[in-house]
Amino acid sequence: MGTLVLLRHGQSVWNAENLFTGWVDVPLSGTGEREARRGGELMREAGLLPDVVHTSVLRRAISTANLALDACDRHWIPVRRDWRLNERHYGALQGKDKKQTLEQFGEAQFMEWRRSYDVPPPPIEAGSEFDQEGDPRYAAGEVPRTECLADVVARFLPYWESAIVPDLRSGKVVLLAAHGNSLRALVKHLDGISDEDIVGLNIPTGIPLRYELDDELRPTVPGGEYLDPEAAVAAAAAVAAQGR
Amino acid sequence: MGTLVLLRHGQSVWNAENLFTGWVDVPLSGTGEREARRGGELMREAGLLPDVVHTSVLRRAISTANLALDACDRHWIPVRRDWRLNERHYGALQGKDKKQTLEQFGEAQFMEWRRSYDVPPPPIEAGSEFDQEGDPRYAAGEVPRTECLADVVARFLPYWESAIVPDLRSGKVVLLAAHGNSLRALVKHLDGISDEDIVGLNIPTGIPLRYELDDELRPTVPGGEYLDPEAAVAAAAAVAAQGR
Repeated sequence: MGTLVLLRHGQSVWNAENLFTGWVDVPLSGTGEREARRGGELMREAGLLPDVVHTSVLRRAISTANLALDACDRHWIPVRRDWRLNERHYGALQGKDKKQTLEQFGEAQFMEWRRSYDVPPPPIEAGSEFDQEGDPRYAAGEVPRTECLADVVARFLPYWESAIVPDLRSGKVVLLAAHGNSLRALVKHLDGISDEDIVGLNIPTGIPLRYELDDELRPTVPGGEYLDPEAAVAAAAAVAAQGR
Repeated sequence: MGTLVLLRHGQSVWNAENLFTGWVDVPLSGTGEREARRGGELMREAGLLPDVVHTSVLRRAISTANLALDACDRHWIPVRRDWRLNERHYGALQGKDKKQTLEQFGEAQFMEWRRSYDVPPPPIEAGSEFDQEGDPRYAAGEVPRTECLADVVARFLPYWESAIVPDLRSGKVVLLAAHGNSLRALVKHLDGISDEDIVGLNIPTGIPLRYELDDELRPTVPGGEYLDPEAAVAAAAAVAAQGR
């Protein structure tokens, strides 16, 4: 019925520095910009050309979409942006070094914050350096103070139903340029992955993941198909090793 | 009532090579990218922050908007794109060298094509190298084969009324990232400039031009205000001298 292309943003300057980012609006690194262009080239080579793009309101996803679409000559398609595609809010961990956090709190607590389904990190302190309260892109009261993956699923799905599904039902090729956890929320929903199993699923950066959906919005190929499967395997392993 | 910010795209690779461009979708040059970022910095310094952006469907205007908005932290605002904001279609002149065209056809014919209000260049030949027929971003039958400025006014104004005016009436700061002739079409309309006088009006690249509009959509300051007036004077003179 429709074709969905998921694209996780390339490396950001904070990914490169191994810091928890969440809603902090850091730019792509030079590596991340190259990943984004390469993602667009993969779409062009596969003849998988988006008709519409949805992004989060964070710079690293927006720049990824801009660079990828420019590389496949689709810079001119309609654009929609929504905070519901944002990365998970990492609470008090935003701006913290991943390795230091691991050493300070230990492996069990670290992995629970990073990969548990329903345990959020401690909330960010109001008015602290990496708090987004007052940011003009968010309506008052819309900004979470922390989120677990279950929270991301809950705030993403209304946008999926109201904004993305109608595009798919009209037969469009829909590109979602977003983040590790907002895309995991979607993959969990699409593939019916359990709360336990989603914890072990890593989505690599910069490699378009294609889902063909049937009339019931079920993937015709469970898990979708990466446009560069070998690179996807290597990249997913690297994501899983972060903080080590 | 509303605030309008006009931003003409920075130098493209064909501007740098002194070729007629029109609807040919060439990228910005390095200079053009710097102009775009500088335009965004001027908006940031002036506290003139767009709430929504409208662009053409051509890469040089889209990239200009992306770079300028990133520079003033407004990369996340809603985006609309429409071919009615495109540059004038330059007909058979698309891809031709401006200086050679001047020498071949003489000053009078050259200036008539470039700056007359209602004389279009000869139409582009169907299927020739720089024809846009069949480009997926345009509906069949929508692509002109040549345009004079009067044609641009005629195809731009419906978009102005249906898409831009509603944004202005809702009190938004509206950024238009577009082209020399689509912006001249708008300035002619806003300032009530005659068919004769619009011929001598040049809009410089990369310098935001601000219009505050009253309830009748009339500019409170005729001609608007450039955010960098000195640079605008110098740049307009340079545009006027093109092809020499």
